[in-house]
Parts: sequence; C-alpha cells; structure tokens
Amino acid sequence: MALYVHKYGGTSVGTTDRIEGVAQKIKKFKDAGHDVVVAVSAMSGETNRLIGLAKAISDEPTPREMDVLVSTGEQVTISLLSMALHKIGLPARSYTGSQVRILTDSAHGKARIQDIDTQRIRADLDQGRVVIVAGFQGVDEHGSITTLGRGGSDTTGVALAAALEAHECHIYTDVDGVYTTDPRVVDKAKRLDKITFEEMLEMASLGSKVLQIRSVEFAGKYKVPLRVLHSREEGSGTLITTEDDSSVEKPVISGIAFNRDEAKLTVMGVPDIPGVASKILGPISAANIEVDMIVQNVAADNTTDFTFTVHRNDFASAETVLKAVAEELGAREVSTDNKITKVSIVGVGMRSHAGVASKMFDVLAQENINIQIISTSEIKISVVIAEKYLELAVRALHTAFGLDDDTK
Amino acid sequence: MALYVHKYGGTSVGTTDRIEGVAQKIKKFKDAGHDVVVAVSAMSGETNRLIGLAKAISDEPTPREMDVLVSTGEQVTISLLSMALHKIGLPARSYTGSQVRILTDSAHGKARIQDIDTQRIRADLDQGRVVIVAGFQGVDEHGSITTLGRGGSDTTGVALAAALEAHECHIYTDVDGVYTTDPRVVDKAKRLDKITFEEMLEMASLGSKVLQIRSVEFAGKYKVPLRVLHSREEGSGTLITTEDDSSVEKPVISGIAFNRDEAKLTVMGVPDIPGVASKILGPISAANIEVDMIVQNVAADNTTDFTFTVHRNDFASAETVLKAVAEELGAREVSTDNKITKVSIVGVGMRSHAGVASKMFDVLAQENINIQIISTSEIKISVVIAEKYLELAVRALHTAFGLDDDTK
Repeated sequence: MALYVHKYGGTSVGTTDRIEGVAQKIKKFKDAGHDVVVAVSAMSGETNRLIGLAKAISDEPTPREMDVLVSTGEQVTISLLSMALHKIGLPARSYTGSQVRILTDSAHGKARIQDIDTQRIRADLDQGRVVIVAGFQGVDEHGSITTLGRGGSDTTGVALAAALEAHECHIYTDVDGVYTTDPRVVDKAKRLDKITFEEMLEMASLGSKVLQIRSVEFAGKYKVPLRVLHSREEGSGTLITTEDDSSVEKPVISGIAFNRDEAKLTVMGVPDIPGVASKILGPISAANIEVDMIVQNVAADNTTDFTFTVHRNDFASAETVLKAVAEELGAREVSTDNKITKVSIVGVGMRSHAGVASKMFDVLAQENINIQIISTSEIKISVVIAEKYLELAVRALHTAFGLDDDTK
Repeated sequence: MALYVHKYGGTSVGTTDRIEGVAQKIKKFKDAGHDVVVAVSAMSGETNRLIGLAKAISDEPTPREMDVLVSTGEQVTISLLSMALHKIGLPARSYTGSQVRILTDSAHGKARIQDIDTQRIRADLDQGRVVIVAGFQGVDEHGSITTLGRGGSDTTGVALAAALEAHECHIYTDVDGVYTTDPRVVDKAKRLDKITFEEMLEMASLGSKVLQIRSVEFAGKYKVPLRVLHSREEGSGTLITTEDDSSVEKPVISGIAFNRDEAKLTVMGVPDIPGVASKILGPISAANIEVDMIVQNVAADNTTDFTFTVHRNDFASAETVLKAVAEELGAREVSTDNKITKVSIVGVGMRSHAGVASKMFDVLAQENINIQIISTSEIKISVVIAEKYLELAVRALHTAFGLDDDTK
C-alpha cells in the first residue's frame, strides 16, 4: 500500500463522462489498496469562459477579483469528481485550495505555494477517503483566494505529493508519456520509460509541452517522482526522476527537442565595451519581449556581434526596438532572420561522453545543413538552422543517436 | 450618512451589462455619502447549469459536494461586480460566505445562519470600500461550504443588515414594489408605499412571490427595514417594516392575494374521534405532499368532514393516498376538486375593524360567487372558490376595499 497523488488536467475532466472515467481510474488504485489524493484542473474551456466574462467588464480586471473568479473553475470539478466517486461507492471529500490551506504569497494570478497544511487530508485518508483538491489555487495569509497561474494544477499535484511524501505523483494527460522527440516529425519517436528532472526541464522548455516547467522544477527540488500517463489509456507512461547511477548503459542522448517559431536578431559592429549587452537587452525586456538564446562571440577590431532569438510573434516589435538601440550605440548594422528554428539534443549522458557535440555537427554537415548559431549547457546542445531543414535535421539526429524505435 | 445593504437577484446580475448597471446603482449611494454592503445571487441560469452537471453524474448528488458546486455561482458574481465597481473608480472587495464567515449549521442545501462575523466587513467599510458578499452560502463549523437553499440570497442580505445594524436592506428585483394584488389580474392594482412584515408574510406565502418568506421572517424578527425596489428603474419601492401606530388612517386591507394552482380534497363521514386528523394527514405528509389549508367543521352524527388543499401538481398522488386512508378509517366518501382557487384579503388593519369578513362575503355574494371553504387568521381571511371566478372575485374585492389606483 502506497500513497499516490493524481493530477488530471482540463481535457481529462472536460465532460461529466470523462469525470466518471477519472473516477474509474482512481478506483483501480483504491482497489489495489492504495491511498489516493487527487488534484484537478477546471473543465476544459471553463477558465476561458470565466476570463471572457471578466474581459466583458474590464480590460484590466482587478487581480484579486480575477482569482476569486477563475478559482470557481476547479471548485466545480472537485465537487463533480467527488460525486462521481460516491456514485461508485468510494468515499471522497473535496477541498478548495483555501479549505486545505494551501498557503501562498499574495501575488494574484501567479502566486507561489509557501506551505500546505496536510492535517485534514491525512485525517480523511485515515478514514479511507479519496481526497480531491482544487488545483491551481491557494489562499494568502489574509484569507484572499490566489491562483498559481496557468498550468498551476501540475504544481499543486507535485506540492501535495511533496508535502504528503507520496510514493509517486501521476500527471494524467492527453499523451501516453514523454517521447524522444515529437512523433509528428519523426515516425520512429520512442516513448521514454524514464527521464531525469534536468532532461525533462530542457525538453519541456524546448517545446515538448507535456508538463509545466515549474512543476518539474518543484518535483526535482523535492525529489518527488513524477509519472506522465495517458488519462484514458492503459500504460506505464514515463517516470521523471533523479539520475540513476546504477544504469551503466544509459543512452548518451535522451531526446531531441526543437522550437519552430523562433526569430533571430543580430546587431553587428557593436563597440566592445562593458555594459553593452544590457544596453541592448534592457529595452527589449522593457518592451515585454522574452528572449530565448543569447550569443556573443569574441570581439575583433574592438567591435563585436551580438545575437539573440525571440518568439516569432515578438519579432516585429523586437526589430523596431533593436534598430533604435543600434543607432544609439553606433552599431554598424542590424541583421535579422525570422525563418529559423532551434534544434537541441538533450541528455544527462553527454556529461560523461566526449564527442557528442562533434557527432551532432557531423550529422548535420552530412545533410548539408548549415549551423548558424551554437549554444550549449551541461546536458544540452542547441543549434539554430534554417527552418526548412527542421524535419531533416531532427530525423537524422534521431537515427544517429540511436533513438529510433525499430519496431515501428 | 447611513449604511445600506443591497441585495441583487439572479436576473439583476444576469449579464455583464446588467452587472455594470448594478455598479452604477451602488455608485449613486456612495456618491450620496452612504456605506454599501452588497449581497448577490448567481447570474440567472447559472445555478441550473451547475445542477445539470451534477445530475449528469448522479441522480442523488452528495449534499456536501452539491454545495461546493452551486456556491461557485455567486462566487462568479461577486468577483465580476467588484471588477465593475473598480472600473468606475469605486474601491470594492468581494467575499465568499466562507471568507466573511457566515457561520451556518451543517444542513447542506438548507443551512441556517447562526452567526456573521462582521469584523472584515467593518474594516473594509472604514477604508471606504464597497463590500460584496456572495449570497445564499455560508460555512459550517468544520469549514465545509454550505448553502441556504434556493432564494437564500435574500436571507443573506437581511442577515447582513441585521448583523451590521444597517439603516435599510434593499432587495432589488424585477418589480418596482409590492402591489395590492397581481397587476396582471387587476389593472388598477396599486404599489404599496409601506406594508408590515406580517402582511408581507401572508402576501408572500399566498403567491405574491416578490420576496423569500424566510427573509421576511428574519427581517421581522430582527426588525430590519426591508425595501423592495426595481433593479433597473428609479423609484422608492415598497418599505416592509413594523406596524406604524402613528398612521391613524391605515387602510383596513393592504392587499389581495391568491393561489391559482390549488386542489381540494375532502373525506366525508369520518368517525369523529381523537387522532383522526393525524391519521389522515400523516400518510399525506409521508408522501412528501405539502398541505396548504386544513378545515374541519363541527361534527354531526358522530362523523365529520375533513378538507384540505394541496398544490395541483400533488393532486393525483394525494387522491391515491387519501382513498386508501379513507377506506381504512371507514369514511363514507372522498370528494375532490382540482379546479379551485384560494383568494385572501390581508391587512393588519382588520384586527381593529369588525365587519371585514362579512363585507368580503357580501362582495362575493353580490357577484354570485359561491364560497366553498373559509379559513381565517388574525390578519387574513381566505376563501376557496371555483377557479373560473378568480379574476372576478379579486377585482370586486380590490374595488370594494378601496385599493383601486384611480389614476390608472
């Protein structure tokens, strides 16, 4: 007998039929003798409906009141799931974030969990009840309702698992696990049985949007084993856990991630003096544009070239800001390209294996793909290439690093 | 400067536009220097939508979870109204029943208010804020969400007014006040400037469904002056208050109420022995049928006739139950009529005026209307007549007791 925390997202609880399906899923764990605590999202579409009501009244709805409003979405789900469990004979009890007392700071709309009172939950578990908690929400020290921001239900699940020292935290989604790369691009993409938190972070931020980044960070920090599973199919999913030193034959690369919608901006001939990077990025950040990669090469002739990438939606405004900055700095030229893509290989294995980078570059060279930018971290190597080569590059790398599922 | 409690029902907050209209209504009171506390219902249709979700899962949804579910309806409204007030520059803060701490018993779906903590509300009022409270809901001593039952938002408004010792509690509705009778039946029906709690109770329970009976009882008990007003039109509405001894020229009758959908059942020739009434009504009550009037006349020949009225929807099942009972009791006959109606004249003035009853019977006799049953209370006289005479009877009585609005 073990304690499991389950988290079901908006699509998994999107209709009353699906909620009854979730109840059946939970019943299997209870029938096997386990304890289950469940965190749920709002029914899909509900949060947007509520936001629509607020927007009909005000372009800038009060953040405190916005949280009062949208938190009703999960409150509806917890009550319906609890009813569905009662219907099949399982005692259950629902709690809002405030009722559990998931204490957060007062940053409405993006609050952070500070503490979870587990007393009520443990008392219910002791009574044999399934405990259902509204995801995505909490309460601040003044008793005001807060929300953790979109996708925060994953964080609620992980935080509950950490506070309750659960055996595993299960995140039920629309996919049956984490793949070596996007199966829509590579037919032979393989479901991973296991992946480390660090790898998952790199995969998630690079576009494999299975899990919210914050929840993975949180799980890594508190060493909560996370498992990604399909909410309506059977299967063991993908376990996200700490690095397992005992597995000697660990693959060097776990997966290949990519970002389609990137754009690249370069300021050329910038005076190579201290503070120039912040002079360039300051105005970009002030314009609320998020920057992804930042690359600056060594200087030549007392000037340097400074490149960064942004989401393609922000390309036009970034270009406008950058041209003004370049003129101010006396830079030679601004050069841009919004037809690029970023491809990354990710794996904790590369730490102890030399030659991973050169192998990657080799594979791309053999396909005649020119590398525009290179950026590396401890467990990831990213390259920027022309967008038209995306599929070719990902497939070639997938095969070269031995990730292909040859049963397909 | 005075403190007003406003209550807005589901239709008054049925759309975001109407919520903005409510904000303007509140602004007028704030601009006049008053403090305002607001109790609101769920947007019209929302509670039924939520109940529909529950019914899709279970025919008998868990009462505790039902309250978690339906209480989200008012929570949506409080946040939207607060946003609408912020938008027009009025500081406001919303609270769920639980956040205020409207303490109730644990009778889910029909909880009764035990105590209201006014501390937070007073602190906000001191800061110049409008305080918005979710109607219809509270929290029990275990921290579980409770609801007061349908229409409970009126009760929330009155209870807040009592706890805060408000100057007046305003109930905003679809009508501009309480009328001497239904204006759809009598063209010359007149809006009453004032009516006593007792009269309002008799009027409400008899079919003038402007206010929830419980809220009127509550207001009477705590002597909270209630005013019924139209939510989208100007006007002073109708004040419901304690009897005003200073008004010498009080009309004898304040209004004429009627119930269209009644049915009458009589057991004739019942042995006149103690306990027979309960033997008849026990099985009726056990079948969950609500009985309205009960009339038993003096016995003759050791047998008596026992008559009661029920809502027409319950007529068929009441008849079935009653026939079985009659046989058991050895009664002579069961006679029924489901084409009847009840007409009542209501007024505290009749306490001190003899002859009101005989005048009523006279008026009906002049119209050749036969009276089937008579029942009286201190401030009300009710008669049962054939349904076809309803309009005729009400109009004749309205004129005879001087209630006609001659400006119409």
